[in-house]
Amino acid sequence: MSSPSLPVITAFERSPDRGKGLARDMRVRWALEEVGQAYEVRLVSFGAMKDPAHRALHPFGQIPTYEEGTLALFESGAIVLHIAECHAGLLPDDAHARARAIAWIFAALNTIEPPILELQTVRFQESDKAWYEQRLPIVEDRIRVRLGELSDRLGDADWLDGAFSAGDLMMVAVLLRLKAAGLLDEYPNLPAYVARGEARPAYQRAFAAQLAVFTNSLSRE
Amino acid sequence: MSSPSLPVITAFERSPDRGKGLARDMRVRWALEEVGQAYEVRLVSFGAMKDPAHRALHPFGQIPTYEEGTLALFESGAIVLHIAECHAGLLPDDAHARARAIAWIFAALNTIEPPILELQTVRFQESDKAWYEQRLPIVEDRIRVRLGELSDRLGDADWLDGAFSAGDLMMVAVLLRLKAAGLLDEYPNLPAYVARGEARPAYQRAFAAQLAVFTNSLSRE
Repeated sequence: MSSPSLPVITAFERSPDRGKGLARDMRVRWALEEVGQAYEVRLVSFGAMKDPAHRALHPFGQIPTYEEGTLALFESGAIVLHIAECHAGLLPDDAHARARAIAWIFAALNTIEPPILELQTVRFQESDKAWYEQRLPIVEDRIRVRLGELSDRLGDADWLDGAFSAGDLMMVAVLLRLKAAGLLDEYPNLPAYVARGEARPAYQRAFAAQLAVFTNSLSRE
Repeated sequence: MSSPSLPVITAFERSPDRGKGLARDMRVRWALEEVGQAYEVRLVSFGAMKDPAHRALHPFGQIPTYEEGTLALFESGAIVLHIAECHAGLLPDDAHARARAIAWIFAALNTIEPPILELQTVRFQESDKAWYEQRLPIVEDRIRVRLGELSDRLGDADWLDGAFSAGDLMMVAVLLRLKAAGLLDEYPNLPAYVARGEARPAYQRAFAAQLAVFTNSLSRE
């Protein structure tokens, strides 16, 4: 039953990571759970994602999108920031601390995530190329540079700048994409940081919700 | 003469693009010029950029940084958004239009810029590799996918969503990185869009200021 008052997000009808929570709807679900905002999910197939109807919501034909009344947003960073601005709990009240938390959202998406995505591209799109074995360690080393810097800044703190914020949410979500690659484990404070994020009840509710979508997609087969 | 009331940004002492305006301080200069905020620039050498003093401002040892009283920020997206939030002129008053303009900042940085940076990495770090000639067109095609989608969304509009906003500022700044590669010209509305950005008086003042830094660095030799 649809309620006109709830925001609606889109997610993969069948997540390519088989419910591991690495698709970008997970960031938005997590943010909504942190602030206690109920939401609805509209599932989109790979084919429908490139249709004009979905492109009208997301110019680049991806998920997630976010609809709230007449507002339609795309880009997980923009959606998480919007949720954080409209609800208490994800950004500090102090104006300076708030600006710094937003800087960490951008750092997660524009400094940490690009080399991680490059590694995924190497693995999934270049694994049959002659250069694969030689290029893989080059890309991994680019990630190591950023992880080392992030690890240095985090030090023995629980979160990047004071209390947990939308900046930590986005950074943990991005770092989770590296979990399987083993690179995180070279910087012991980073897996512990990610684990603190995963231990949050809001993360766990969001994870369970996206996993249920995948499990249901299997049972429909 | 230093004025304690002006924000201070950092920029390359000697820009690697030789004053072409592609370094990320240009985005921040442009935003400051758009809103009419005077600023000071502290130049940083390549060596000093990795020193602890600069790392305290920028965990990843890059430029630009932004200091305003006791506030210190990094990440060009976060700095431009902060400037846009503190001054009129770069974000619409309407809350929905404002959220959509911010979505375009994220789209520029997280969807359009990553494949462009990958192209730069190929060109500057892999040009001596055996795979260079084969890999270059693969990376260019990844950029073309995004440019085609962006071109479709822009259509015959002047700007991405209504009036010029911080989202356009960031998108133009990112697309400028492609100018020399010729890829933009395959989508006629995109060079025209970039040219509209470059024609803005605020852009021109910012460009002249960063070029003067490079010219001065030559005259000091």
